[in-house]
Amino acid sequence: MKVTNFAPGPTPVPDRVVRKMSAPILTHRSTEFSDLLRGVASGLQHVFQTENDVLVLTASGSGAMEAAVVNLLSPGDRVLAISGGKFGGRWVELCATYGIDALTLDVEWGKAADPDEVDRILGEQGPFEAVLATHSETSTGVLHDIEALGRVARGHGCYLVVDAISGLGANELRTDDWHVDIALTGSQKALMIPPGLAFISVSKRAWQRIEESRQPSYYLNLNRARDSFTKGLTPYTPAVSLLMGLDESLRMMKELGLKEIYRIHERNALVTRAGVAALGLNLFARRPSNVLTSVVMPPGIDGSALLKTIKQECGVTIANGMDHYRGKYIRIAHLGYNVAPSDMIVALTALEHGLSRHGYVFESGAGVAAAERVIRETS
Amino acid sequence: MKVTNFAPGPTPVPDRVVRKMSAPILTHRSTEFSDLLRGVASGLQHVFQTENDVLVLTASGSGAMEAAVVNLLSPGDRVLAISGGKFGGRWVELCATYGIDALTLDVEWGKAADPDEVDRILGEQGPFEAVLATHSETSTGVLHDIEALGRVARGHGCYLVVDAISGLGANELRTDDWHVDIALTGSQKALMIPPGLAFISVSKRAWQRIEESRQPSYYLNLNRARDSFTKGLTPYTPAVSLLMGLDESLRMMKELGLKEIYRIHERNALVTRAGVAALGLNLFARRPSNVLTSVVMPPGIDGSALLKTIKQECGVTIANGMDHYRGKYIRIAHLGYNVAPSDMIVALTALEHGLSRHGYVFESGAGVAAAERVIRETS
Repeated sequence: MKVTNFAPGPTPVPDRVVRKMSAPILTHRSTEFSDLLRGVASGLQHVFQTENDVLVLTASGSGAMEAAVVNLLSPGDRVLAISGGKFGGRWVELCATYGIDALTLDVEWGKAADPDEVDRILGEQGPFEAVLATHSETSTGVLHDIEALGRVARGHGCYLVVDAISGLGANELRTDDWHVDIALTGSQKALMIPPGLAFISVSKRAWQRIEESRQPSYYLNLNRARDSFTKGLTPYTPAVSLLMGLDESLRMMKELGLKEIYRIHERNALVTRAGVAALGLNLFARRPSNVLTSVVMPPGIDGSALLKTIKQECGVTIANGMDHYRGKYIRIAHLGYNVAPSDMIVALTALEHGLSRHGYVFESGAGVAAAERVIRETS
Repeated sequence: MKVTNFAPGPTPVPDRVVRKMSAPILTHRSTEFSDLLRGVASGLQHVFQTENDVLVLTASGSGAMEAAVVNLLSPGDRVLAISGGKFGGRWVELCATYGIDALTLDVEWGKAADPDEVDRILGEQGPFEAVLATHSETSTGVLHDIEALGRVARGHGCYLVVDAISGLGANELRTDDWHVDIALTGSQKALMIPPGLAFISVSKRAWQRIEESRQPSYYLNLNRARDSFTKGLTPYTPAVSLLMGLDESLRMMKELGLKEIYRIHERNALVTRAGVAALGLNLFARRPSNVLTSVVMPPGIDGSALLKTIKQECGVTIANGMDHYRGKYIRIAHLGYNVAPSDMIVALTALEHGLSRHGYVFESGAGVAAAERVIRETS
């Protein structure tokens, strides 16, 4: 059976990108590769809205998170780590691993960090070297207010480090205007290529600190990456075929324009949420991201069993809640290339089917009808 | 112009593999993915000739080298690092980065480590925790004698760690029989898929030490990788499309059989070397690997200029010598899918063309004729 995938990454890869990745592979020590790398870096600057160099790492997003921690921070540095989900929790784990003195701001899953609270903590319990934050928390579907956190962090003289792995390209992130010192993302989300690459933007003031870091690093060392990048190279063999695909997907993103890409993501989020609301279901995220819609399961319905039914009977993959919320809510992604309104109707139809199979009482078709209304109103 | 690539990786990707990588991408939290990962791990055991679990890292081979060092060793541990080229030098750099007390055995570029000398050093200057070695040194084309080094290391109770990035699959490496505690390789060499994945085999006795390591690690942490692997998962989003391709390339390798794959590589090495010898040129490697043939440039001929001519006028990419040997010798790879005898004739024709253009005096066609003789004799 055909499977349609609404997991929040890896997202579907456009045909144009697949064709580019299928071309004979370049060697990474050639002028053709250096030209490709420079073009890609420029396209990444566009998506990151930054004038910083954006470096390429052959790793998943978590590798770039480690790169941020081990390059910017040294053992004993004090930081504020904002954790409002599984991926915010990675900041805490990374700090614990590398001897960084992290105060954790535990934000209840489903909520966004309150910038005023962050401001208060930075003022009262400081000084802190850095704030580690998440743009769009993939485990909950929450969008954190990076613009406000940037103002607050800068006000206290802290570096701001943002995991924008799932959010970049789906929700606005103005790296430079919002005072984000390090922003990082992965390849398999809004950038529409397979996983295996991560990208990291570093501000001028962060580079000064990185040059003085006392934390050892090698494969994920950013000074090495920058030294090679200035020569059009990478320090270690990069994932060349993925870079060939990225070159094409960044071209597609430039053709559409960032505003239009955000609008497409937002519209599909609205379509999905209208459908969910019409079924009498609640959103898990108080401040929802354009990346995904997390839907609380009604009493008596086990999300894990529901998703199994949907996969088996409709050929539709929707993601489960994570960790202790497994089965408690489900996550419908509208991210990357998979974001036509008709796609979201497929997801809602599968959701209605599953709910019906598991005994939830609702007016059949109500979700799809509400979604169709939003499609009409926004056309 | 069509470009034919004789660089020692990334090697050409077979059509069968390209087609697999072009299929709709799997999510990495699905039973389909877990099945794929388990199949791939079994195929890797075949190529590594091991019963150890072979773990998958989303990184280049250098990432796996770092994983070996930071997981097996702790700060202050004493090791013997064998360095006979640029990539052996990475062991030395990694140890310096992570506070490992490495004695470097500097082997002259072009030569292989002498197992008797290693035996003497281990006996006289020990105790050492581990020996860090290279299987096929890509920068020089030398094949080190891992079988003998394995006997020596085991005799002194040392762990043996082998960088087999370019060699595995082209030259025999019997991980278990030869007492290799950690063997690692990359995806873009004899495994015939694009770069972006690395694979690492860890022996039972090495796992015991890894569990006790005091060196912090996160993205490259092997305990985490093993914990996830037992559940059919990876700890971080893996390079899924490359794994889909690997599944196919490992199938191709199983169909051919390891013996036949080694024979194909060896035959193409012999064809190439017969051609080079007939042109009156010398090999740089005293103990040549099946991966590549390094050819010393005759007096008055600059290898860098020669390679530029060959690229521009023949559409053939041959690799340069590395670091201080740049221009002094060139490296013709016969690695992975690019190893039909007719391919090597293309490389030799380009070499003859370049030599002639740069004023080297030789009998035109002599290299190709000698290569043809070997093709006939080995058919």
